[in-house]
Amino acid sequence: MPRLSFWFEFASTYSYLSAMRIEASAADAGVAIDWRPFLLGPIFRAQGWETSPFNLYPAKGRYMVRDIERIAAYRGLTFRLPDPFPQNGLLAARLATVGARDGWIAPFARAVYTAEFAEGRNIADHDVLADLLATVGVPTGPAFAAAASTEIKERLRAATEEAVRLDIFGAPSFVCADRELFWGDDRLEAALACAASAPP
Amino acid sequence: MPRLSFWFEFASTYSYLSAMRIEASAADAGVAIDWRPFLLGPIFRAQGWETSPFNLYPAKGRYMVRDIERIAAYRGLTFRLPDPFPQNGLLAARLATVGARDGWIAPFARAVYTAEFAEGRNIADHDVLADLLATVGVPTGPAFAAAASTEIKERLRAATEEAVRLDIFGAPSFVCADRELFWGDDRLEAALACAASAPP
Repeated sequence: MPRLSFWFEFASTYSYLSAMRIEASAADAGVAIDWRPFLLGPIFRAQGWETSPFNLYPAKGRYMVRDIERIAAYRGLTFRLPDPFPQNGLLAARLATVGARDGWIAPFARAVYTAEFAEGRNIADHDVLADLLATVGVPTGPAFAAAASTEIKERLRAATEEAVRLDIFGAPSFVCADRELFWGDDRLEAALACAASAPP
Repeated sequence: MPRLSFWFEFASTYSYLSAMRIEASAADAGVAIDWRPFLLGPIFRAQGWETSPFNLYPAKGRYMVRDIERIAAYRGLTFRLPDPFPQNGLLAARLATVGARDGWIAPFARAVYTAEFAEGRNIADHDVLADLLATVGVPTGPAFAAAASTEIKERLRAATEEAVRLDIFGAPSFVCADRELFWGDDRLEAALACAASAPP
């Protein structure tokens, strides 16, 4: 089955839109998804941004909220901008890295995004994340222990470095056949078409 | 007939994509287009950018070229990034402002975009613009005289100020019913749907 890499950051509003629909869209396209959590913070800081561009450029931030409200309404999703924005997604990204290794990343990532952007919960909070792990049937003690391990911290750091090598500068990003980059929820269909037609 | 405002900047690569298809898409949607030339330079400078974000952020610039190559190929358009990029579109925007007043803006704007992004011509060049005016049947002398008039310079300045009031931060932008903002060629369909359903 052809594969597409889905690079996402938990603080990213447009990543929420993709996370909630990518498995259904991929199934329709006959493509399997590799969920790739990474951190945008180091990439933004390297280009001189200390926070989200939606905070740095207020008109763009106001537009993003309206744009996502419209799309979410059309897709039957709830959306409200979390406070504070952006959320600190480091611990969630480490847990997702454990989930990528152990096979539960997709339901966990959807649970995190729903908590953050539909329910107004703080995804930097250990207890919130414990609740989300339990909701998707993951034993919380071993998951937190793994998330704090050198192996997992190093994997997440390496993923972010790999994102830089792939020329990724925002999220969500999709990489087809290890070379063709697509940026933004509105490019998901084109990325899936690329993956479906790529030589194996 | 419902109307949609199309805010475009001649230096903008994604505005090229929209300019080449908006009249056909609008006709299908039963919407009339108001072509609104404006300048992004003052808006970018107000947020600290002295050139295009595609130059300031090289990974984003490389992605933009690839993204537009893919879309242009799909739509049967030619695309090459002009040199220098961005082009200086001030005189072209003043001429387009004359065209908005005198009824020839749409074919003139398409001619400018084709020269710039398909043919590698310099749209800051007076002779190139004279050639394009002639191509679309506009007497060049009166057009250049009008473009140099205080009335037209002031109209273009006022248009850029109106763009700021509308919270426009990039191009292309579409404004439905004087309030609902859509940004980017990939939002044209949603903007047309908004215009088609807006109360008169």
